[in-house]
Amino acid sequence: MRTLYHLPLCPYSRKVRLVLAEKRLPFDLQVEKVWERRPEYLLLNPAATTPTLEEDNGLAVPDSGVICEYLEEAYPDNPLLGETLGERVEVRRLRAWFDGKFADEVTRNLNGEKYLKRISGIGHPDASALRAGYANLREHLHYLGWLAETRKWLAGSHISLADFAAAAHLSVLDFQGDVDWSVSPAARDWYARMKSRPSFRPLLADRVPGMMPPEHYADLDF
Amino acid sequence: MRTLYHLPLCPYSRKVRLVLAEKRLPFDLQVEKVWERRPEYLLLNPAATTPTLEEDNGLAVPDSGVICEYLEEAYPDNPLLGETLGERVEVRRLRAWFDGKFADEVTRNLNGEKYLKRISGIGHPDASALRAGYANLREHLHYLGWLAETRKWLAGSHISLADFAAAAHLSVLDFQGDVDWSVSPAARDWYARMKSRPSFRPLLADRVPGMMPPEHYADLDF
Repeated sequence: MRTLYHLPLCPYSRKVRLVLAEKRLPFDLQVEKVWERRPEYLLLNPAATTPTLEEDNGLAVPDSGVICEYLEEAYPDNPLLGETLGERVEVRRLRAWFDGKFADEVTRNLNGEKYLKRISGIGHPDASALRAGYANLREHLHYLGWLAETRKWLAGSHISLADFAAAAHLSVLDFQGDVDWSVSPAARDWYARMKSRPSFRPLLADRVPGMMPPEHYADLDF
Repeated sequence: MRTLYHLPLCPYSRKVRLVLAEKRLPFDLQVEKVWERRPEYLLLNPAATTPTLEEDNGLAVPDSGVICEYLEEAYPDNPLLGETLGERVEVRRLRAWFDGKFADEVTRNLNGEKYLKRISGIGHPDASALRAGYANLREHLHYLGWLAETRKWLAGSHISLADFAAAAHLSVLDFQGDVDWSVSPAARDWYARMKSRPSFRPLLADRVPGMMPPEHYADLDF
């Protein structure tokens, strides 16, 4: 069976789980504690990041960006990258925005400090990083809300990888209770639409030892 | 005329310059001082990063990763992403390796501290970042050398985006005199092959106010 090596609160793993489910591709999940640097895993993915996808034919596909491009080429049904060149630029631009800029400015400061440091045993959250993360998140929610107000989905008229990348990051932050949805009702409405998709259900069922998500986390009508 | 907004010692800009030249696509270069946050540029690329490609038809393509995927789809001649699914995974894996892991561990610590801080006027190099950058660079040169020894090009039997991504990062470090090529003769031989390509000539001619590259920088037989 196709296997995805992942961490439950890794936004990149979550994005790939959403994409696999949207493409109706069955897969097994296996937790990979990358900080243990398991030799068999380093052979699949020398960068020792999550996620890595292992296909039934043995092909190992590391890195969520590489996995999503691979899945689009290998399984073109239910396309998630857009059709025209211009649409594909906008989908990939926003994918890079959330996995790059948003990740650096928000996710690394909040999820990195509160979750990754704890599970890998390397210390306590840094207060100035948390402050920066919360401040940056407000700005990003405004931008996300503006996109959601002016378009049907984030990159245009079709749901795309841009939506799944953004929703994956927001889902881990929401699990930690870090998202003040009152900042942008348009962003909240978009996220409610994302949460109600069947592909999202397994993410909402994730639980992590020692962390309880807020009550609204799995509530589709929050 | 197609325009690439860039910075001369930005590895991402250099990668796109190489790819455009390899695909024989003519373009104008325009320096973009992104820290000035020029409003017209933010319309092309809200993330305010370099590079951004602007096509004659007005399409703005920001982010070097997005640009390279776009160029491969819009101009499939001289393909640089590989043919089979497996080849394309390996090319994109190594592209992500150099633009992600190598960039975080090496380029950010050396180019970021010595060049970006100076041109954007935000301070002096941090000594511990430089030490980490040099130590990491040695490890990465060994990996690069191992790839170059066991394959014709970094990702396999054809030259690809993996080679241009790696060479772009190494070219800015080499400009700064930061690369000890004696660490890996195989890496040096591969880089000599890259430097001798016509697409590389404009990079070797770049000069930056206040910085002089070492004598071997533009020497094809260093």
